[in-house]
Amino acid sequence: MNFNEQTLTDAAVARLDGCTDPRLREIMSSLIRHLHAFVRDVELTESEWFEAIKFLTETGHRCDDKRQEFILLSDTLGVSMLVDAINHRNPSGTTDTTVFGPYFVAGAPELPHWGHIAEGLPGTPCYVSGTVRDTNGQAISGAIIDLWQTDGVEGLYDVQVAGDTMFGRGRVRTDAQGRYAFRTVKPISYTIPADGPVGRMLRMMGRHPWRPAHVHTMLQCEGYRSITTHLFVKGDPWLKSDAVFGVKDSLVVDFVDRPAGPAPDGSLSEVAFCEAHYDFVMARA
Amino acid sequence: MNFNEQTLTDAAVARLDGCTDPRLREIMSSLIRHLHAFVRDVELTESEWFEAIKFLTETGHRCDDKRQEFILLSDTLGVSMLVDAINHRNPSGTTDTTVFGPYFVAGAPELPHWGHIAEGLPGTPCYVSGTVRDTNGQAISGAIIDLWQTDGVEGLYDVQVAGDTMFGRGRVRTDAQGRYAFRTVKPISYTIPADGPVGRMLRMMGRHPWRPAHVHTMLQCEGYRSITTHLFVKGDPWLKSDAVFGVKDSLVVDFVDRPAGPAPDGSLSEVAFCEAHYDFVMARA
Repeated sequence: MNFNEQTLTDAAVARLDGCTDPRLREIMSSLIRHLHAFVRDVELTESEWFEAIKFLTETGHRCDDKRQEFILLSDTLGVSMLVDAINHRNPSGTTDTTVFGPYFVAGAPELPHWGHIAEGLPGTPCYVSGTVRDTNGQAISGAIIDLWQTDGVEGLYDVQVAGDTMFGRGRVRTDAQGRYAFRTVKPISYTIPADGPVGRMLRMMGRHPWRPAHVHTMLQCEGYRSITTHLFVKGDPWLKSDAVFGVKDSLVVDFVDRPAGPAPDGSLSEVAFCEAHYDFVMARA
Repeated sequence: MNFNEQTLTDAAVARLDGCTDPRLREIMSSLIRHLHAFVRDVELTESEWFEAIKFLTETGHRCDDKRQEFILLSDTLGVSMLVDAINHRNPSGTTDTTVFGPYFVAGAPELPHWGHIAEGLPGTPCYVSGTVRDTNGQAISGAIIDLWQTDGVEGLYDVQVAGDTMFGRGRVRTDAQGRYAFRTVKPISYTIPADGPVGRMLRMMGRHPWRPAHVHTMLQCEGYRSITTHLFVKGDPWLKSDAVFGVKDSLVVDFVDRPAGPAPDGSLSEVAFCEAHYDFVMARA
């Protein structure tokens, strides 16, 4: 007892003496030290502390089955990309990773080669194909690629829209030559949900909520390190100021506009479309 | 773009360039730096990050009109007491402050001298009195003392119990000689709510959720610095290990047991009771 400004932090850390989980002890000790250092650093006032309590509470209240405001908070403060960077110090030559985001949904259907992940959605038809190889250039067959994205006109994920219809999602599998291919609508830039506490925080910080257009991809294959990343659309105006710090040059892909006519899947498109090509590289686990 | 483990923090801080509120900019810059330092320090894994997201979400979901789990989190990590210490570097000789806690409710009734803040509640009858003076020893009349505490048997605040009945709360005012007096039931040690995420965290950390018995007090008077503090019960087994780090020697008060007979308010008590005396000292604003 009798803890003061100087002794309180050590006292709080010392309370972990009975913690039998060494990793938890390490994490909580560090968290307490950094949290206290922050409070000391800015000399947080009581009313600012209470604003923080209310902000966290409201952030929690905005989380439900369809929305994860704490992931948005982590993303917009650069924490998610830092965790990503620390956890994916992958061998050079492998595909860069980026932020997972709050919109993944398990259980998307597996589609055939050139299957459509956004059937019936508004937007510019888009054909995406490429290969998955290992760091020696050998094709990886049977890799599963989870894909998810917004529609091509409003920039909303299925889980942001009322109703339980899944759209903008699918899984494709690489063939014996390591090739994958799918159809979709061209992704567009969109804002992260800005009508909650994180949106308010961004406005107060003088920041915009825009993310450059992208398709989420998650690659998994037995014996290889999984890769969670995006394919960004070259030329997007928000590439340099992505609200969640996720863009890497190597992930920016040319979505080439094509007139109506022969399409990459062998069909004949009656409307203009675009096509993109990207080759992934996975490292052995 | 192309931010990596080394460059991400500066990039996230630089996004505050458009922030027009210098204090918010200072706070958010420091928060981002300390949060990132924590993540780097422990090399937080992706699954640990996701556990943290789920923990914060659950903590938010446990907050409602009757419960403030984020304040519990702040209290149990020593953050609340640190904020208290930083904001109350009061002139020596004034009453020590301690944690505000999540259980204050505005609008408690003002009671007369020797009014009862816990009428009808189970517990040992208790008479508390004393004075409020300034640092020169001059009586302060008209100071308002907000009081709140649990019942004397179960250790629950009114807001933790179903229904909207207010109990264990009241305000008293010092008289012309700076004296205050109230009746209550003797406070008992209690556990902070341990059935939520903060309780789970404490168990995982090898910590107990107990707080030593106390009466909350908040003193306010025009021209003086407000004081938020507790009166702790001497001899309580949890004084040295208060779950929220709030105990100071100077706030530990002897609650003296008395047999049935004449009571401090001039009445005759038919049952045994206890009495306590405490003199507060306020500094000029």
